[in-house]
Amino acid sequence: MSDFKIPGITVYRLALYARALERFLAEGKDLISSEELARECGVNSAQLRKDLSYFGQFGVRGVGYSVPALLKHIKRILGTDREWPMVLAGVGHLGMALLNYDLLAQRGFRFVAAFDVDEKKIGRVINDVYVYALEQFGWVVKEHPVKIGVIATPASAAQEVADLFIEHGIKGILNFAPVRIKHPKNVVVEHSDLTILFDKVAFYTRRLD
Amino acid sequence: MSDFKIPGITVYRLALYARALERFLAEGKDLISSEELARECGVNSAQLRKDLSYFGQFGVRGVGYSVPALLKHIKRILGTDREWPMVLAGVGHLGMALLNYDLLAQRGFRFVAAFDVDEKKIGRVINDVYVYALEQFGWVVKEHPVKIGVIATPASAAQEVADLFIEHGIKGILNFAPVRIKHPKNVVVEHSDLTILFDKVAFYTRRLD
Repeated sequence: MSDFKIPGITVYRLALYARALERFLAEGKDLISSEELARECGVNSAQLRKDLSYFGQFGVRGVGYSVPALLKHIKRILGTDREWPMVLAGVGHLGMALLNYDLLAQRGFRFVAAFDVDEKKIGRVINDVYVYALEQFGWVVKEHPVKIGVIATPASAAQEVADLFIEHGIKGILNFAPVRIKHPKNVVVEHSDLTILFDKVAFYTRRLD
Repeated sequence: MSDFKIPGITVYRLALYARALERFLAEGKDLISSEELARECGVNSAQLRKDLSYFGQFGVRGVGYSVPALLKHIKRILGTDREWPMVLAGVGHLGMALLNYDLLAQRGFRFVAAFDVDEKKIGRVINDVYVYALEQFGWVVKEHPVKIGVIATPASAAQEVADLFIEHGIKGILNFAPVRIKHPKNVVVEHSDLTILFDKVAFYTRRLD
């Protein structure tokens, strides 16, 4: 199967597996069964085995998976075994939260520059990241090999920012603004929707009554 | 199947379907095929039909789904056809972003009070939500029928806040702090991990090279 055809939901599950394996590793666990890993991720174990089989055979029947080896394998599949230099557009509350979210840099997702249109924000340094004027975008990204652009602007500015990202060769965009971004096929845009998390809590909470 | 046994990943997909249906509805679309809805959600259509079949028969072969009827059906399953009064602990950058995220209230997730330990934040009103001192928690929640508690504190404070929520009868918790929360079985805790979104972008972006 061509990697690009892998459905988004499968990639999401791979990321869930990686997070769970990191926790098991931190607890000093060396081996894990597919049942145990699946349960930790809220997935059934047949699904987990099928997901991993997309990317070649892994694990030994009756023995389980080596936690560090499987984690390394999944990180290589995800492409999170390397550094991903990023830029941020929009230094509002969410932008500030992202710049201060040290777990991102620990996982190789490192902001190299931030942009805003607000004079009061331009020139500030947030967690070692400089905030530039949006109009400086062109020459700032010339200095940095940026791979991912993150949009945390109001909805009204998101498309314009995405167009600017794309014009300057950024191929991967994560959009937190509540609006769908139009983009050419050779650019990846992930739309983040935090409200989905609230739906999940609602679903399970209602069933406790 | 007992609803409570529905795996987290299925609930996640249901929420994705609801979001896509909302977009189709906004575009004035009345009918949709399972293939079209599945594609919009990055899921395969057999999976979509299976998910919906958990909750009874729906749709007419060869005709597709009625967009408004299916949306209503899924919202009833998710429990998002009602109001979910919430409290927030932690009015930092992420907390501020959540309080200002109007899409949440539009979907019935309404903050009725926020809490912090920082004197400079206590007494402020953010998007109509009052910020109380954390020690006032007990009497504030007595006045409000709170269903969900949201944690946006630093990791070091998250467990203490969760314990306080649970002690006061909150059964649904959404935790944005990067730490696992210990909790009794009759309480639901969803851990949010924003880094998973970045993994997805990395996966697809790498494949464009």
